[in-house]
Amino acid sequence: MPEISQRAKNMPASPVRKLVPYAEEAKKKGTKVYHLNIGQPDIETPETALRAIKNIDLKVLDYSLSEGGFAYREALASYYHKLGFNDLTPENFIVTNGGSEALNFAISTLCDSEDEVIIPEPYYANYNGFAGTFNVKVVAIPSTIENGFSLPPAEDFEKKITEKTRAIIICNPGNPTGYLYTQEELKKLAEIAVRHDIAIISDEVYREYVYDNNEHISMLAFPFASDHVVIIDSESKRYSMCGARIGCLITRSEKIYRAAMLFAQARLSPVLIGQIAATAAHHDDAAYVEEVRNEYTKRRDLLVDLLAKIPGVKCSRPKGAFYCVAELPVEDTDHFAQWLLEKFSDNNETVMVAPAGGFYSNPELGKKQVRIAYVLKEEDLKRSVELLEIGMARYKKEFLNPKG
Amino acid sequence: MPEISQRAKNMPASPVRKLVPYAEEAKKKGTKVYHLNIGQPDIETPETALRAIKNIDLKVLDYSLSEGGFAYREALASYYHKLGFNDLTPENFIVTNGGSEALNFAISTLCDSEDEVIIPEPYYANYNGFAGTFNVKVVAIPSTIENGFSLPPAEDFEKKITEKTRAIIICNPGNPTGYLYTQEELKKLAEIAVRHDIAIISDEVYREYVYDNNEHISMLAFPFASDHVVIIDSESKRYSMCGARIGCLITRSEKIYRAAMLFAQARLSPVLIGQIAATAAHHDDAAYVEEVRNEYTKRRDLLVDLLAKIPGVKCSRPKGAFYCVAELPVEDTDHFAQWLLEKFSDNNETVMVAPAGGFYSNPELGKKQVRIAYVLKEEDLKRSVELLEIGMARYKKEFLNPKG
Repeated sequence: MPEISQRAKNMPASPVRKLVPYAEEAKKKGTKVYHLNIGQPDIETPETALRAIKNIDLKVLDYSLSEGGFAYREALASYYHKLGFNDLTPENFIVTNGGSEALNFAISTLCDSEDEVIIPEPYYANYNGFAGTFNVKVVAIPSTIENGFSLPPAEDFEKKITEKTRAIIICNPGNPTGYLYTQEELKKLAEIAVRHDIAIISDEVYREYVYDNNEHISMLAFPFASDHVVIIDSESKRYSMCGARIGCLITRSEKIYRAAMLFAQARLSPVLIGQIAATAAHHDDAAYVEEVRNEYTKRRDLLVDLLAKIPGVKCSRPKGAFYCVAELPVEDTDHFAQWLLEKFSDNNETVMVAPAGGFYSNPELGKKQVRIAYVLKEEDLKRSVELLEIGMARYKKEFLNPKG
Repeated sequence: MPEISQRAKNMPASPVRKLVPYAEEAKKKGTKVYHLNIGQPDIETPETALRAIKNIDLKVLDYSLSEGGFAYREALASYYHKLGFNDLTPENFIVTNGGSEALNFAISTLCDSEDEVIIPEPYYANYNGFAGTFNVKVVAIPSTIENGFSLPPAEDFEKKITEKTRAIIICNPGNPTGYLYTQEELKKLAEIAVRHDIAIISDEVYREYVYDNNEHISMLAFPFASDHVVIIDSESKRYSMCGARIGCLITRSEKIYRAAMLFAQARLSPVLIGQIAATAAHHDDAAYVEEVRNEYTKRRDLLVDLLAKIPGVKCSRPKGAFYCVAELPVEDTDHFAQWLLEKFSDNNETVMVAPAGGFYSNPELGKKQVRIAYVLKEEDLKRSVELLEIGMARYKKEFLNPKG
């Protein structure tokens, strides 16, 4: 039997997805599973986007340009103009199959095997996957639940820079922490990137979902670092169209753009229908985002307030995105999360959470934590937390007193 | 300015896509460009597939499972049952963003940096891109236009196998050559794979388009090599839905499947709407493929007959896929193809072909050749070849007698 690659052997299982088979089994047994494990909102996709799909007037679903169709890149440029970046043109955008592919392109364009990227942790678990795909090493800068996952001093980043460092990756607002970077923090990171001539890959796919009148600052806001910045964006979260698989890579650096285009050409083209849907959403849905933001604010508050009432649970109030990292009074959330799916149910219902170990470079650091996505409507969220609480109580009983 | 990776520097430009900017320029000047450069058929996507898209009854475009939705994988399994592979179940399929992503997964699952894959050349140019992405070396086995690109003896493959060899990649029927492998050739390759415990990645995306009552034999037909075979498939060509970006990786090897799934999970999910469209096409469109096959047969015959009449042009009659490699009486088809777009037009029309250098490990071998896709309807194909002929005559005049 042929051996699989070391690359594959080193690939971490996605903490968000690895328990899916257990969830599928639970569903087969008739158990309802509430999904707090994945950033799949139950928020409806904008009606204009769905209508654009239903009204497609095409005879052939053909390839688009490798960098994405011009009309959609124009819509993207005009969206970025509204954010204040008037210099961007369609030629700054490469449309990708989700933000995932944009991350892949960014890393492969900038990094060779054994190179390093610096990432504040906990971080989006699939950064490990994308880096691992290319044998790139993740060097983590730790932040902790105790201080609300606030960013360590920018100088700490500088200390980690070696000859192998090719980029700093940030997610702003952060998945899984909900942390929102300040103007000052971002400026310092940009200065470090320029000083050391490394790239900053800024994953801003949750940009729209920032709460309490806080302002999101894009890494694009520092023109002195124009040649160093690569933005990862996506329509998945903005318009609740994760399954459309439409994201993009944005850079003002011609050199990075041209290199990334080689990877884009090799896979021929991003998906057509998603571009049509996203173009429509951009044209018509300004109000949509505000409404969704209000909804997430309510959900966040509900979630955090409910969690705070459970003895032994620690969690801070995230400023953005739609996740929070919570510490649970269990020894190993990998085991607990699997147990919830395999052994537990209450009134034929259970809940699925993402064990947070996979969001750290060293899984031990997140062993007692889970990532919870507040993507379900309030009543479902309420029931999910209730299930979590009942589950924890029963789990504690079972494992502290097995004969219980 | 941050340096780009060596990986990116080594990435070959796609011979199919690298001239696109010149084509875009020509179009801006009002010149009509006939595209023989790319496998983008003008054949209509099945009505059932388009209808399924128009009738989507979804409120949220959500993620599917990383391996693809169950309903679509069931449709795939049942399609493979009709091909005679009754043992396949939905659990043998990983749905991907086009055949491109399936190739990426196959290579990253099997190969590490510096590993080698053996490929008969000329081969699909993007194999270079996918291998290059992972620093994998392509070891080519040459075939020539003189003998219709027939496969060298299977033993020649064996001679190229080293400790670094991880897989043999074949494309059957072949892009760009249209070559169709015989049962005997395939069996020998399968035996070699088993004997040396390496994988065979068999790209069968053109399986439906085999002409003159020839039979397509899948690499799945050799159960003794079950653990060694990875199939690349796609709906792009079968149902003329290249822009839907739906392909799949198929393997009977649990080990390879599990490893490939890690890469699939890292990018979360394949595209939703394409799966819906493809499921519909599989359920209803048996007649479609036969009709399209007849159409391609006519186009192939027209193309080959027309090319045969042009003095100095060499080309054989392909048995499958919808490409042929033709040798032209010019010194450098890279230069010629660009010239056709930049400097040439006849009645405000020109034609785009893919220089064949990029389909070889050593571009010099294909320097006088082009790949022509017979994906346009007969009258367009006729006009395209006419433009090619007029262009060649004018090009010859200009470059043999520049003052002429």
